[in-house]
Amino acid sequence: MNEFHNKNKSQIANLPIGIFDSGVGGLTVYRALHNRLPSERFIYLGDTARVPYGTKSLTTVERYAIENSQFLAARGIKLLVVACNTASALALPKIRAQIGIDVVGVIGPGARKAVAVTQSEKNPKIGVIATEATVSSNAYAVSIKQASEAAEVLQIACPLFVPLAEENWTQETETFSIAKKYLNKIIEFAPNALVLGCTHYPILREVIQQTVGFNVTLIDSGEATAEEVEKLLREKGLANTKQISYNRGRRLCDDLDHFYVTDAAERFARVAERFLGSQPAKLEAIEVFGIDKLK
Amino acid sequence: MNEFHNKNKSQIANLPIGIFDSGVGGLTVYRALHNRLPSERFIYLGDTARVPYGTKSLTTVERYAIENSQFLAARGIKLLVVACNTASALALPKIRAQIGIDVVGVIGPGARKAVAVTQSEKNPKIGVIATEATVSSNAYAVSIKQASEAAEVLQIACPLFVPLAEENWTQETETFSIAKKYLNKIIEFAPNALVLGCTHYPILREVIQQTVGFNVTLIDSGEATAEEVEKLLREKGLANTKQISYNRGRRLCDDLDHFYVTDAAERFARVAERFLGSQPAKLEAIEVFGIDKLK
Repeated sequence: MNEFHNKNKSQIANLPIGIFDSGVGGLTVYRALHNRLPSERFIYLGDTARVPYGTKSLTTVERYAIENSQFLAARGIKLLVVACNTASALALPKIRAQIGIDVVGVIGPGARKAVAVTQSEKNPKIGVIATEATVSSNAYAVSIKQASEAAEVLQIACPLFVPLAEENWTQETETFSIAKKYLNKIIEFAPNALVLGCTHYPILREVIQQTVGFNVTLIDSGEATAEEVEKLLREKGLANTKQISYNRGRRLCDDLDHFYVTDAAERFARVAERFLGSQPAKLEAIEVFGIDKLK
Repeated sequence: MNEFHNKNKSQIANLPIGIFDSGVGGLTVYRALHNRLPSERFIYLGDTARVPYGTKSLTTVERYAIENSQFLAARGIKLLVVACNTASALALPKIRAQIGIDVVGVIGPGARKAVAVTQSEKNPKIGVIATEATVSSNAYAVSIKQASEAAEVLQIACPLFVPLAEENWTQETETFSIAKKYLNKIIEFAPNALVLGCTHYPILREVIQQTVGFNVTLIDSGEATAEEVEKLLREKGLANTKQISYNRGRRLCDDLDHFYVTDAAERFARVAERFLGSQPAKLEAIEVFGIDKLK
């Protein structure tokens, strides 16, 4: 952190943005950030040794989240994006208390975006689909209510969506059938907007959109997060202005971005290709075994 | 270990059998052991903080497996069952090198049972369904070939079966449809026996049996393991003979058996109820953070 505070603003602006997720799901958030901010560089940490977070306890998720944040902070980043919904729901206060830089989670931006796109409605109705853990945490409902007291919220867990996305079953009839089953109550609820409250769900976006109907606005929390990050960097004067060199031939997963995983790099690369269309140019497996080893 | 060697045979026979799995799946192995050996007591460790093992590297799985084995050994057990297919495929030699008691994995028994039930066939054909990691390890194919050179083996990964089992979708049309898709090549192969090479799959046994047809003998690796454990205890004179007291009202998950999880005990109890029909009477969450904390 001392290193960070000794830098001037333009030096800080040159630093990459850190992103961590429990595994591969956060790659959809990386994609959204990359698309919106092509002048920025990114360091992504996928905690594949300890995925999934959704079935773990508060204490454990907090500990993992802090270790991941410290790992990225130690590499020199100007801003931290917590791409993992579970960690965003449970661990943001603890991370902020530990890390001396701005921290953006995916839940707040997703919730605020849902409220923004439904603000013309008299009685806005917002659906949220997420993992069991995120739904139980009630974090989206709380965030939506903070942004709009008038909003009515219905949250539904869709446990099979993550493995279906990782299988890349984006067109299969079984996926449509399962979606129909899970989203039945959402369809009855007839929301104006539906938040994709899990980083894997954008992979199944088409299935979800067709199932709930095209009059429902889908909110990709990753995209909403990228918008807020753009705004925050601009406000703080920390956007990277070296646009020309970075924009030249900038593409997803190129060697300006650095990917770390805590285990099984090969599988990560394979799923990255399914999700993003290309494998990371720079991918490194690190050992994670408590805070000491992470540093 | 010293403690173990100072005991006489009848004292050792009174010790419980240790079982570990990466999470809840091993409960089907516990059930099989419990049903076959009602005079025995069991200590079960579900490493729910670090589940799943199937997507992790060899080194990591070995480390976790050794930590789990040492945790159980330190509690005083007469035999260790590695209920996790991934750990059985990757870590048995390392575990045996570390632990001074008999260690039984699920892959060898499953493979040998499949060979045994097909031995009357001239050209026995054995199918294996398992997770991606178990299939990639080739462990079942190697074990089957060791038991019978004549056997022809086809292995297929069914990644969605684990989440479907945990959702308890044992009757849903989507499960049948997904099973048909996954098992298509198995049906074409027309095996005499099909090994359920993942501890979750017995939960979907009916779906799998209906899909492949009733002329295919399903091999539950957990049941095959229980048979081998029974034989081993008898041969070594280590079977618990205090049958009367233990048999009186013995039931799954009663207080003669002790369950430990490394995280999220509540979720474990919930899935245990889905899988076994009752929640563990004695369930304890322990912290797992390297070998020191596990002891």
